[in-house]
Amino acid sequence: MKQIALLGATGSIGRQTLEVLRLHKEEFALYAMAFGKNVAEAIPLIQEFNPTIVVVQDEITKEKLDREIEHSLILSGSGGLIEASVADSVDVVVNAVMGSIGLPATLKAIEAKKTIAIANKETLVTAGHLVMDAAERHGVKLLPVDSEHSAIYQALNGENPKDIHKLIITASGGSFRDKRREELEGVTVKDALNHPNWSMGAKITIDSASMMNKGLEVIEAHWLFDVPYDQIHVILHRESVIHSMVEFVDRSVMAQLGSPDMKVPIQYALTYPDRLDLTMTKQLELEEIATLHFEKMDMTRFPCLQMAYDAGRAGGSMTTVLNAANEEAVQMFLEDKISFLDIEKLIDKELSNHQRIHTPDLSTILSIDKMTRERVRSHLN
Amino acid sequence: MKQIALLGATGSIGRQTLEVLRLHKEEFALYAMAFGKNVAEAIPLIQEFNPTIVVVQDEITKEKLDREIEHSLILSGSGGLIEASVADSVDVVVNAVMGSIGLPATLKAIEAKKTIAIANKETLVTAGHLVMDAAERHGVKLLPVDSEHSAIYQALNGENPKDIHKLIITASGGSFRDKRREELEGVTVKDALNHPNWSMGAKITIDSASMMNKGLEVIEAHWLFDVPYDQIHVILHRESVIHSMVEFVDRSVMAQLGSPDMKVPIQYALTYPDRLDLTMTKQLELEEIATLHFEKMDMTRFPCLQMAYDAGRAGGSMTTVLNAANEEAVQMFLEDKISFLDIEKLIDKELSNHQRIHTPDLSTILSIDKMTRERVRSHLN
Repeated sequence: MKQIALLGATGSIGRQTLEVLRLHKEEFALYAMAFGKNVAEAIPLIQEFNPTIVVVQDEITKEKLDREIEHSLILSGSGGLIEASVADSVDVVVNAVMGSIGLPATLKAIEAKKTIAIANKETLVTAGHLVMDAAERHGVKLLPVDSEHSAIYQALNGENPKDIHKLIITASGGSFRDKRREELEGVTVKDALNHPNWSMGAKITIDSASMMNKGLEVIEAHWLFDVPYDQIHVILHRESVIHSMVEFVDRSVMAQLGSPDMKVPIQYALTYPDRLDLTMTKQLELEEIATLHFEKMDMTRFPCLQMAYDAGRAGGSMTTVLNAANEEAVQMFLEDKISFLDIEKLIDKELSNHQRIHTPDLSTILSIDKMTRERVRSHLN
Repeated sequence: MKQIALLGATGSIGRQTLEVLRLHKEEFALYAMAFGKNVAEAIPLIQEFNPTIVVVQDEITKEKLDREIEHSLILSGSGGLIEASVADSVDVVVNAVMGSIGLPATLKAIEAKKTIAIANKETLVTAGHLVMDAAERHGVKLLPVDSEHSAIYQALNGENPKDIHKLIITASGGSFRDKRREELEGVTVKDALNHPNWSMGAKITIDSASMMNKGLEVIEAHWLFDVPYDQIHVILHRESVIHSMVEFVDRSVMAQLGSPDMKVPIQYALTYPDRLDLTMTKQLELEEIATLHFEKMDMTRFPCLQMAYDAGRAGGSMTTVLNAANEEAVQMFLEDKISFLDIEKLIDKELSNHQRIHTPDLSTILSIDKMTRERVRSHLN
């Protein structure tokens, strides 16, 4: 039986991870569970899964939880995330926390030789060189949970990485795919959260609308699969049926397809290299869907994608800035403090002003991350 | 360097196999080359590739060839095919002869532990149980060359066969896909040979028009991948971009895509588990193709496919009859002796009259094959 540490249990990926665990009680147990502040949602989960370790975001939440339930090991903060991730019994750490907060725990889990199921793309965007270097040194597998990267991972099953000619990442286009740029001026948070295909958290849904999500995925793919940016292509595919593809040197293209359901890549990361039944997921019926569409990605229409490619190619600390500025700007948009198009303007400004550091260490990354967020916030004043 | 024995060198698959060998002279050498009677086409190939063994269909052709070129080892007939296939130096036997004539050589090559690249689906349709049983006993790999089976083989790379939920074989629909049944009455050989996507030999192009090709592929897939008929689905996909798919138990679907070019699966069978450059093949550009279509397969419109499923499910000698009756009827259609719709009528009659033998041995298969052909021919009188 695999013992799981789930970081981010009450988020969208966390909840769906728990659904997968429910389906396969003989295969998986929840050893540790971390969440932010949502005590009301967490309590029934703690009662149901009975994890040995519970981690919450801060001391105030810990006190609140202590008053509500009896549990012998409730930890808090970044230290708690780390303790949960490196616990001896843990086999797989599912990193599904939001933003770059999961980074230190991921690095410690890698040092402790845990398999990492990585749903947190910000970890790789902000510190890809540190994470991949650590994974290689400790011989640890990083299993992607993002549907696109899971698709590529599956397409590479049994293949030799040297035979990759290019990666083709599909993009649904997000909630504003049918709007021209001039129509984006007045869009609201509610408009942006209305994703056509996928049910996801707020941050990633906004990132989909701006196409920054695809940009972050390109950078994530660069690190996960060690493929240069020129060999990573993005293609618009409205139906989200082909989740991504790999073209090999012999022109053969391997693709992974399926109904849009995050439980498939989540479970694959937990069962790899095996597969398990997932009967609750709708079977793909191509006869019913009847038509799949593909369009060239327009970088002028979606400047966030171009910024991500540029930051990725520049490398070093540029992607840390890209990610931090984006996280903060999206948060400000969700708080109704800036407009949708301000997101890309704020990111662009941070990238333009940043003096790139070639190979930043963890403390440099965390300090650049913090300063960038503060500067983005300060634009309000 | 891999030494190749190519059976059927002047056919469509044979010619494309030689194109692949030309591209990778440091990887492959042509040790043996077999063809039928086309001496004019064969002579420059013999001069170019300088194979140690040359095999021709009969003594008359051998004498003709002997008069034209100096070659120390020209063999003929079924014995020649076998000798070429089991020669010590040979690593891979590419079986691309037309019809069931390749069967004895394939079985002998398996006994000699040669890797088999199988382009001849009739071998598996007519005697799947013998071939697969022999392959298992001798620990021999059967690598499919058919684009659909190569797609499935690639989709199964690194996977556990127990995780297969179903195989999804795509069908372009052939040259008559837009005709209703009543429009098939007067179609000519020329109409039938006009395939919309693939450039192939005459027999397989007619089989595509009748959908018998897909039926033979279903039976071939049953044997190659050990999957029951109920778990093999056929779907109409006009563009022939997705060459086939595998759905796994977790609802994940792996597909292989590419431009319709037989050199890709041919080369894959020769390089497996590696891949090699194939720059002459057009890269797949989904943005250019823009739309992929999928439709339910209509078994009433294409009764040959239903007959193939029925014969496959009945098993034993039924598929031998199916294949022999089809080969002979198609030949008669190509000779303008019967109409297109007569093909399915003749096959149906043979299947209805046949007393199934449960597990026929090779000599029984060869005799049923011969008798069926004679009976189909005799319907002319």
